[in-house]
Amino acid sequence: MNEMSKPKTDNAPMMSVEDFEAAIRAVGAERYHDKHPFHHLLHGGKLNKGQVQAWALNRYCYQAGVPRKDAALISRLHDRELRREWLHRIHDHDGLPPEEPGGIERWMILTDGLGLDRDYVCSREGALPATKFAVEAYVHFVREQPLTIAIASSLTELFAPKIHKERIAGMLENYPDYIDDKVMAYFKRRLTQAPRDATFALNYVLQNAANRAEQDACVAAVEFKCNVLWAQLDALFHAYYEPGNVPPGAFKPEDV
Amino acid sequence: MNEMSKPKTDNAPMMSVEDFEAAIRAVGAERYHDKHPFHHLLHGGKLNKGQVQAWALNRYCYQAGVPRKDAALISRLHDRELRREWLHRIHDHDGLPPEEPGGIERWMILTDGLGLDRDYVCSREGALPATKFAVEAYVHFVREQPLTIAIASSLTELFAPKIHKERIAGMLENYPDYIDDKVMAYFKRRLTQAPRDATFALNYVLQNAANRAEQDACVAAVEFKCNVLWAQLDALFHAYYEPGNVPPGAFKPEDV
Repeated sequence: MNEMSKPKTDNAPMMSVEDFEAAIRAVGAERYHDKHPFHHLLHGGKLNKGQVQAWALNRYCYQAGVPRKDAALISRLHDRELRREWLHRIHDHDGLPPEEPGGIERWMILTDGLGLDRDYVCSREGALPATKFAVEAYVHFVREQPLTIAIASSLTELFAPKIHKERIAGMLENYPDYIDDKVMAYFKRRLTQAPRDATFALNYVLQNAANRAEQDACVAAVEFKCNVLWAQLDALFHAYYEPGNVPPGAFKPEDV
Repeated sequence: MNEMSKPKTDNAPMMSVEDFEAAIRAVGAERYHDKHPFHHLLHGGKLNKGQVQAWALNRYCYQAGVPRKDAALISRLHDRELRREWLHRIHDHDGLPPEEPGGIERWMILTDGLGLDRDYVCSREGALPATKFAVEAYVHFVREQPLTIAIASSLTELFAPKIHKERIAGMLENYPDYIDDKVMAYFKRRLTQAPRDATFALNYVLQNAANRAEQDACVAAVEFKCNVLWAQLDALFHAYYEPGNVPPGAFKPEDV
């Protein structure tokens, strides 16, 4: 979000709903993390087990951050219907006993499958500082930005089903020793959850951005969120794909 | 929370769990809002319908603030089990379809019974500024204070069952024209919800306050919360019991 380099649009007319949606979707086409080299390595079976462990361990921080950012949003909503609509996102991640274990529980099945200790994963002690900084930046963004812009930051979900499909197929094919259908449950579930949520949030943003500056800020929020995701993969790539770069205190795989 | 007037306890030893709990409970005995003259007027049948309307309309802001402060707390919790435990408080207030309509919905049955328009109530436009300031102070306190202290601010629930019982009996007896069992549903439900929540939060605070300064801050948090409740009744008393004091823009009952 380099404000200096953006065209000045303060006096520009509002985008039509169609152009606004296209601008949001263009962000994904340009910079969603399915374009990141670390993802190509992950899905293409080019990582060793320690590197997949590092990915799952760090990505846990993001998974666990999502219900916190959703709660941060709810804490700002005076509209009860909107709070009620948004609440199911917390259920999707943290679970809703007795039926729904939640996405984080499914993520732990993945880290279990990879042989990682649950307490260690949940402690976030082995996660890269850059991962934690990126995740907390997301929580703070949602807590602090104007509401429509905060909601817009969730719209990377528009781009998620494709990456999840690629991931399910690629990881099942390439890591048969520790990835199976049960372990991939998280991503399968997100195939149905994410589109429902994304449609709601997209409609909210399209209808509520009140002027061109706010429309631009919503597009920038999607860029910001892509940066949050991209930065996590940059950090993983640097620390675990290039040899010798694991920072002090971070997880050290046995085979790296 | 006048820090200047407090005894200096930085070097004091930690309170025993029993003394700490007693100090928390002493706050309720001294300054919970069941001691406020407006409550005696309300429960004693000394208010006219317009004054009861003003109370219900203003208290709506508090009811609607509670799930937001609970979401603010959840947004700060890295412990998933604690998030899951705290989440049912949001369900209690905002509801959990299809079974649970939630406490705010029950509150609207009360404001319906009093002949208030739902949209007007939910808009909070007619509420006293002092009410809204007090409620938002609570949300911000929970968002910003250290976790144990934020949780301690919920402990006025320890004192709530008594006031709810008095309120149910007093209002049913004294306002038969617009208060009936159905309208009192909110308070009846809270008779079972509040003790369960209060017990959990009390145990959390007793176990997690790490030193004397934090114990003192937890006691002060209960005082703060009592102030949040008391200030709302002060504002109601001034605006609606004393004649001629309704501030500009606030709800004007027909019979005041």
